[in-house]
Amino acid sequence: MASTSPPLKDELDIVIPTIRNLDFLEMWRPFFQPYHLIIVQDGDPSKTIMVPEALIMSSIIDSACRCFGYMISKKKYIYTIDDDCFVSCKGSEWKRYKRIGTTHKNLLCPSTPFFFNTLYEPFRDGADFVRGYPFSLREGVPTAASHGLWLNIPDYDAPTQLVKPLERNTRYVDTVLTIPKGTLFPMCEMNLAFDRDLIGPATYFGLMEDGQPIGRYDDMWAGWCCKVICDHLGLGIKTGLPYIYHSKASNPFVNLKKEYKGNFWQEEIIPFFQTLTLSKEFTSVQKCYIELSRLVKENLGTIDPYFLKLSEAMVTWIEAWDELNPPTKHSSK
Amino acid sequence: MASTSPPLKDELDIVIPTIRNLDFLEMWRPFFQPYHLIIVQDGDPSKTIMVPEALIMSSIIDSACRCFGYMISKKKYIYTIDDDCFVSCKGSEWKRYKRIGTTHKNLLCPSTPFFFNTLYEPFRDGADFVRGYPFSLREGVPTAASHGLWLNIPDYDAPTQLVKPLERNTRYVDTVLTIPKGTLFPMCEMNLAFDRDLIGPATYFGLMEDGQPIGRYDDMWAGWCCKVICDHLGLGIKTGLPYIYHSKASNPFVNLKKEYKGNFWQEEIIPFFQTLTLSKEFTSVQKCYIELSRLVKENLGTIDPYFLKLSEAMVTWIEAWDELNPPTKHSSK
Repeated sequence: MASTSPPLKDELDIVIPTIRNLDFLEMWRPFFQPYHLIIVQDGDPSKTIMVPEALIMSSIIDSACRCFGYMISKKKYIYTIDDDCFVSCKGSEWKRYKRIGTTHKNLLCPSTPFFFNTLYEPFRDGADFVRGYPFSLREGVPTAASHGLWLNIPDYDAPTQLVKPLERNTRYVDTVLTIPKGTLFPMCEMNLAFDRDLIGPATYFGLMEDGQPIGRYDDMWAGWCCKVICDHLGLGIKTGLPYIYHSKASNPFVNLKKEYKGNFWQEEIIPFFQTLTLSKEFTSVQKCYIELSRLVKENLGTIDPYFLKLSEAMVTWIEAWDELNPPTKHSSK
Repeated sequence: MASTSPPLKDELDIVIPTIRNLDFLEMWRPFFQPYHLIIVQDGDPSKTIMVPEALIMSSIIDSACRCFGYMISKKKYIYTIDDDCFVSCKGSEWKRYKRIGTTHKNLLCPSTPFFFNTLYEPFRDGADFVRGYPFSLREGVPTAASHGLWLNIPDYDAPTQLVKPLERNTRYVDTVLTIPKGTLFPMCEMNLAFDRDLIGPATYFGLMEDGQPIGRYDDMWAGWCCKVICDHLGLGIKTGLPYIYHSKASNPFVNLKKEYKGNFWQEEIIPFFQTLTLSKEFTSVQKCYIELSRLVKENLGTIDPYFLKLSEAMVTWIEAWDELNPPTKHSSK
């Protein structure tokens, strides 16, 4: 089974959006120092932190800026984290470097999306596939993404924040599991790792917040797109460990303003993603994503003209991705 | 949210197959004493423990005898457990009566099979639906079954037992989750509760072991049938807490003999269950189950004539169920 060793320096980039909290880098130094950080700054230009490349892509990347980092990275793996997320004391994966090792292990171990294993991740020490798990499915499929969770401030929408202002997540659930094929999940950006070669081109965060009618659905959008493409291409997504400690609740009133259209639009968007089918001819992430952009235009354009713009941005995103990421022996386009 | 109070006496029956270990009843006395026990004895007739009714159903119920108890019960809920399963010390649900309360709570709280909640069971204290979970799906659907897990001896198939004789499950995963719609799971009989009114007629354990070409797939068979019918009827199945302590590993050589045909038959049976569809006209568990028996005959009969016999037994099972369980205001036939 894969070890929990951290990835090598030339395997992983850490992508961080706007850092408002300088303690953040200090706290994470022992974990992050072997790696390149790609810090993507939005907001106040007087506080610019060095951005490795100066490519202007303002037509497709706005507040959901971290995906710019995904695109310009040259590494196989990306780990992304928010600046209000810290090392958590609970759990055994929190020794030095270990957390990134745990994330990395999730990516190195296969996923098992075709059948549910009741003891959860079969590739952890002390676990395996249980009686009744088909032997032919035990090899699993490659893991494209690892969705880590959060203690303390839970990732709630604005309405839930408003009605449960004091709720804290104190429950450490010692598990990782593959999200089954055909099941969507809310992918949160706070503590996320993925394999760029496998799913990178589907990690676009869409047009969000500044000048757009919707915010706080950037990671959700990327999650829905990634999941349907993973399901189509036979890739897996895991969720669970490792946890970070999420220190700061965002303002629920500001959030409500950003997300309220998403709160009802998702009632149409999710059935769209749940029922769409990608035909066999779409054999790469890029091809799937372009087809997805067409389906978005065709099916979601009636909700709001925003989705027509988004559909175009999705195409531009893939063009830019391909320009910056020409095919190599690792990528399968 | 539903409390973890135990169910009332007139709500729950506890069904236990052959008790070989008399400590078992003593150990569980404080938990079980408010309830009726239905102990279904197979094997040595000189050791018969009182069976509440003497109906002879030997043509359809053999070693997988516990489902006889499911059929003759008059209660809404069934809890079934094996005689080598004991109270576990880990976890907070283990105070007096609490474990059955936890199981009961799983059944009382809705299930959420249509979308994955990354903080798992949204109805537990301190948890909720996360950002991005569609509001229209938060009411959930009724929960038909609660599949509890096991510490110590994991529920492995014979090949895994043979290669990992010393493996013990020591990982207490503090969670419950709904198995998503469209995903099958290996349902184990060791620590299982279900709502008879909702799914009872689909809990038949099949023709197993004595005189049959297959054993140790009785609970699996019931699990596959229950899951596809729950998916069709809009019901949910949960897995996770509460844990029992599974004390005794069964003999892997004996198990291999019983299960080896199942080990390869399941490679055809599972795709059959994964791809079958039940049309809208099948609006009750009974109707679905009769249709399932027809599909079994049609699709699995080619594997082995055993499945033709099983298909017939499934029909007989429903006839007997309906005779013993005439429609009431609680049942929807």
